[in-house]
Amino acid sequence: MSASEREIPRDWFRAIAVFDSAYCRCIDEDRLEKWPEFFVENCRYRITSADNFRQKLPIGLIAATSRKMLIDRVTALRRANIYEEQRYRHIVSQPTILEEHTDGASSETGFLVARVTPRTSPEVFATGSYRDRFTVVGGVLKLAERIVVCDSSRIDTLLALPL
Amino acid sequence: MSASEREIPRDWFRAIAVFDSAYCRCIDEDRLEKWPEFFVENCRYRITSADNFRQKLPIGLIAATSRKMLIDRVTALRRANIYEEQRYRHIVSQPTILEEHTDGASSETGFLVARVTPRTSPEVFATGSYRDRFTVVGGVLKLAERIVVCDSSRIDTLLALPL
Amino acid sequence: MSASEREIPRDWFRAIAVFDSAYCRCIDEDRLEKWPEFFVENCRYRITSADNFRQKLPIGLIAATSRKMLIDRVTALRRANIYEEQRYRHIVSQPTILEEHTDGASSETGFLVARVTPRTSPEVFATGSYRDRFTVVGGVLKLAERIVVCDSSRIDTLLALPL
Repeated sequence: MSASEREIPRDWFRAIAVFDSAYCRCIDEDRLEKWPEFFVENCRYRITSADNFRQKLPIGLIAATSRKMLIDRVTALRRANIYEEQRYRHIVSQPTILEEHTDGASSETGFLVARVTPRTSPEVFATGSYRDRFTVVGGVLKLAERIVVCDSSRIDTLLALPL
Repeated sequence: MSASEREIPRDWFRAIAVFDSAYCRCIDEDRLEKWPEFFVENCRYRITSADNFRQKLPIGLIAATSRKMLIDRVTALRRANIYEEQRYRHIVSQPTILEEHTDGASSETGFLVARVTPRTSPEVFATGSYRDRFTVVGGVLKLAERIVVCDSSRIDTLLALPL
Repeated sequence: MSASEREIPRDWFRAIAVFDSAYCRCIDEDRLEKWPEFFVENCRYRITSADNFRQKLPIGLIAATSRKMLIDRVTALRRANIYEEQRYRHIVSQPTILEEHTDGASSETGFLVARVTPRTSPEVFATGSYRDRFTVVGGVLKLAERIVVCDSSRIDTLLALPL
């Protein structure tokens, strides 16, 4: 994130596009340890399905209520060595800004994630939308909340890396 | 679309990116009734294949010459209840601006649409490019024409939701 | 590329997004002869796999060290008539700017390429990231280097059109 992004953005559309680009690169280039830094300390991160989300079922496939839980998840993933078996490639749309304040914004952004393993061609693994609340901490844009709403309900068994 | 977009854009690249983000979200989040509002009254909307487009065959898979025809199509889709069976996820590229005037612009934008049904994993359903003419009506960016040129000719039988 | 992009960009994020949009359209719309013009004369262009890239193996699937070699490649492709058999559709993420100078920038950009043939539905052909060095020649943004790092190693046999 360049110097020009290190203050409260006047242009949320652009700031969130820059943010998402770095977020996806962090996961796809296997820098998982950096992933929790995209969130505030007392963040909310959840992966759920569109069906569950519509019915307002509170618990999804993964639910974290602090950055510490995200760090623990990365540690667990590293122990399991799953990251050597598969890689993701996130392709995100441009965000739609739903609300903006002086110190934060909420937005929705479509995504597609392809999964690649050493022995197979890439395939579409998940599609859906990020339902986000952004805030600014110390001049840096962070996620206060990211709800990952997957279009399909058939995602649980394979789920491993963050979305 | 935020207040800052509600005038004739000086920055078409950005304005069209914002527009496409909202357009795709409208379809993917099942707000089909809002879809015709992205077009002017006497709009042209057409879905065709690259082969047909190259040969300048006039009629595509779908051809509408007014917003009213788009509204009728949504009504028909709702009656058929197809929207419960499948969902789309549009991922669009950034636009390429081909021409720009004070009150409009034409552009081309690549897209990929994944299809998701409750029982299946997401799969690539269609790829292609939007050939667009944009104009501004009452301070709001609208499509005067969107020709959806699908790369593959094998798309007709499954076609249901708007692209 | 509009007039406003024809000088040294102050906004690399945007300039590269505009560039990539035109680059992908050039390939996907079968204007291959224009493709070498996106590079400087003494450019480096390489396609490799993430595995090879990580092990710093110097040679990839394709390696060109001048624009002339890119032109030769297009000529060979035209002779082989492969372009009639398959088409690509590039979907690129927003870039992440890694370094920026007054006269250049380096960046990384995720991509997904779908392949379409007349007889088949589109399928994900390749995913990966562009590792780029941009420079400005005569007021126009050009690639000094593009290393196409494919996520999967299973890409060689089908490879034909530029990525």
